[in-house]
Amino acid sequence: MSNTCTGRGVCAPAGVLAHGVACGIKANGKHDLGLLHFPHGASVAGVFTQNLVKAAPVLLTSEKVKRGHCKAVVVNSGNANACTGQKGMDDAKTMCRIAAHALGCSEEEVLVCSTGVIGEPLPMEAVERGIYEAAKGLSTEGDEAFAQAILTTDTGIKTCTVDCGDFCIGGAAKGAGMIHPNMATMLAFITTDVKASAEELQSLLREAVDLSFNRITVDGDTSTNDTVLLMATGASGAVLEEKRKPFRKGLIDVCQHLAKAIVRDGEGATKLVKVKVEGTDTEEDAKKICSTIATSLLFKTALFGEDPNWGRIAGALGRAGVPIDPNGFSVFIGDVPVVERGVGVEGDWETPAHKVMTQSEFEITVRIGNGPASYWMWTCDLSHGYVSINADYRS
Amino acid sequence: MSNTCTGRGVCAPAGVLAHGVACGIKANGKHDLGLLHFPHGASVAGVFTQNLVKAAPVLLTSEKVKRGHCKAVVVNSGNANACTGQKGMDDAKTMCRIAAHALGCSEEEVLVCSTGVIGEPLPMEAVERGIYEAAKGLSTEGDEAFAQAILTTDTGIKTCTVDCGDFCIGGAAKGAGMIHPNMATMLAFITTDVKASAEELQSLLREAVDLSFNRITVDGDTSTNDTVLLMATGASGAVLEEKRKPFRKGLIDVCQHLAKAIVRDGEGATKLVKVKVEGTDTEEDAKKICSTIATSLLFKTALFGEDPNWGRIAGALGRAGVPIDPNGFSVFIGDVPVVERGVGVEGDWETPAHKVMTQSEFEITVRIGNGPASYWMWTCDLSHGYVSINADYRS
Repeated sequence: MSNTCTGRGVCAPAGVLAHGVACGIKANGKHDLGLLHFPHGASVAGVFTQNLVKAAPVLLTSEKVKRGHCKAVVVNSGNANACTGQKGMDDAKTMCRIAAHALGCSEEEVLVCSTGVIGEPLPMEAVERGIYEAAKGLSTEGDEAFAQAILTTDTGIKTCTVDCGDFCIGGAAKGAGMIHPNMATMLAFITTDVKASAEELQSLLREAVDLSFNRITVDGDTSTNDTVLLMATGASGAVLEEKRKPFRKGLIDVCQHLAKAIVRDGEGATKLVKVKVEGTDTEEDAKKICSTIATSLLFKTALFGEDPNWGRIAGALGRAGVPIDPNGFSVFIGDVPVVERGVGVEGDWETPAHKVMTQSEFEITVRIGNGPASYWMWTCDLSHGYVSINADYRS
Repeated sequence: MSNTCTGRGVCAPAGVLAHGVACGIKANGKHDLGLLHFPHGASVAGVFTQNLVKAAPVLLTSEKVKRGHCKAVVVNSGNANACTGQKGMDDAKTMCRIAAHALGCSEEEVLVCSTGVIGEPLPMEAVERGIYEAAKGLSTEGDEAFAQAILTTDTGIKTCTVDCGDFCIGGAAKGAGMIHPNMATMLAFITTDVKASAEELQSLLREAVDLSFNRITVDGDTSTNDTVLLMATGASGAVLEEKRKPFRKGLIDVCQHLAKAIVRDGEGATKLVKVKVEGTDTEEDAKKICSTIATSLLFKTALFGEDPNWGRIAGALGRAGVPIDPNGFSVFIGDVPVVERGVGVEGDWETPAHKVMTQSEFEITVRIGNGPASYWMWTCDLSHGYVSINADYRS
């Protein structure tokens, strides 16, 4: 059986309807309310922020996902519904109730996500109007409107479709600032028409997130609202048990595509850089060093300046909290060796290293020693644009 | 006995000569070689970077300080002499040998510090010329020339004098970027004419550094070269044993004055902000939360934008790795309460909170719970200036 993907995102798999509208949460009149609908239901898995300060919709949806089944997801942007106390929780529940009423399903079958400014109450009249309007417009071509409705400082929509032959995986994500491992201010909605149990989905989603959204950093800040949801309608007739290998690969592909799109759209970012740390004793050590380099402001501003100033890498790896031999590490910018055994290489390393850094995507590799472990992350540069966006975020 | 302070920095105490010159290490022709001389010797204590990647002069000087006595310190800026292998260590030793020759003391009595770009060999001909020139110009009025010679991206000299009646404490510091607790890219030279043993000095210096240089953050990056040296000539005749209380206070005052000057001159900084975290069970917990907030890019850009966006404080404290009650924390911007028990306060908190943030110096207080512990740090805002300075540092 073959199943042709349609649409460019969450509506690509069969059995998924979507729409997005502007209901007035955002002062600028942009789309701010999105709705996903699975008329015949879907198995669902979710991964949520590890920040201790969790927004009301995260608290609510992470509980609901445990049931393993849903019929709809309602999402608003422009307001995170975080640090809003009991009213925030009441509002999140009200959003589910309104969507359930509009779609003719039960409140328990509706999940809710919010993203935007923290600490302000949701304008519930606008939200209610938006949910009904979005419900009316639901279609199998609503991918783009939905993808629009979940954005905040993003410069464009982030969608992805992978055609696996018998079945299909689609996704939409949002995220640009407050991005850091353990997911930061991001939302991702991944849909598939493979038939799968919630338990099967959960373990595969966890792995795919660890290889994608948990490896991206824009500014080291994490958020109160991060959520990745994976919903499987089963409408293709293909069964996950028999398609485990292509599904696993497809899911990782979708997550990595969306994760890279988030870093590439990092607030003010002009470059996507993969930082690889090799040769440590444990993956945990490699991760600590990798994260320290990838989040160093001095490193990230040097990326923006296309300046192969490897001293900043040396400085970062020395403060990562991992015992290293300061006379044993090597650094490569692309394929260009710039440090060998803790000392800068001789000759003109700077011209070729600078040339690598003029590219919009490249890798930097740090070899710590001869250990068996390694880790990598995607980061971006720190530019004037980041400062401009974040100095006046709320105005 | 009374001792009048003279000069504005390291030459204020009796028994200290200083000078600084431009010898050509910096391409821009600015001062880059400084010399301190104690003709009758001085007791010495030192605190050094905790970065595992240590520059050659740090390795050398931290060993020499253990002798507890010195007659001179030679400092260059414009080149960190870090990650320079055996040549770097040879060069650091050569700097001491040249200075000893110029001053007529032994090589063991000369300490050395470097700051600037990492990974490039020192231009030793220029350095040698500079040391002899600086030695010729030594005087009791050389404070300012010395303070100039230790700067890198600093916008101005940082000096301080405290007159303690019977004795005097003076200091000069440099540092603007790569500033973070555990001292980062900073150098500080503190002189006094009290009579003290190296052991007495060391414990008091450690305490003063913990209350000053270890509480400042500009960008979260630490460095290979940080050094704080305290030298006591004894020339005032006052004895530390009898003056412990005023000396301790004076030393903390000098260190805090210089530390604040560093943050105020943080690369691109326009604001000096004291972040206070109170009510935790342990100081370690308060420190973790304080550091996470004070280094958050989103928080620091909001400071630049004078935007009382406390959601970024909530986001930061939730990811600090300390168990907190998300419904129990309060936030004050200056004296203005903006969050109470995890929820934004009602009414117009924004106008007075914004007004506080328009000041060039203010405090932000986060109360976590009812625990007995607290911690504070000084941080600055993140501006366009930071990005400009660091994108093209080496050009």
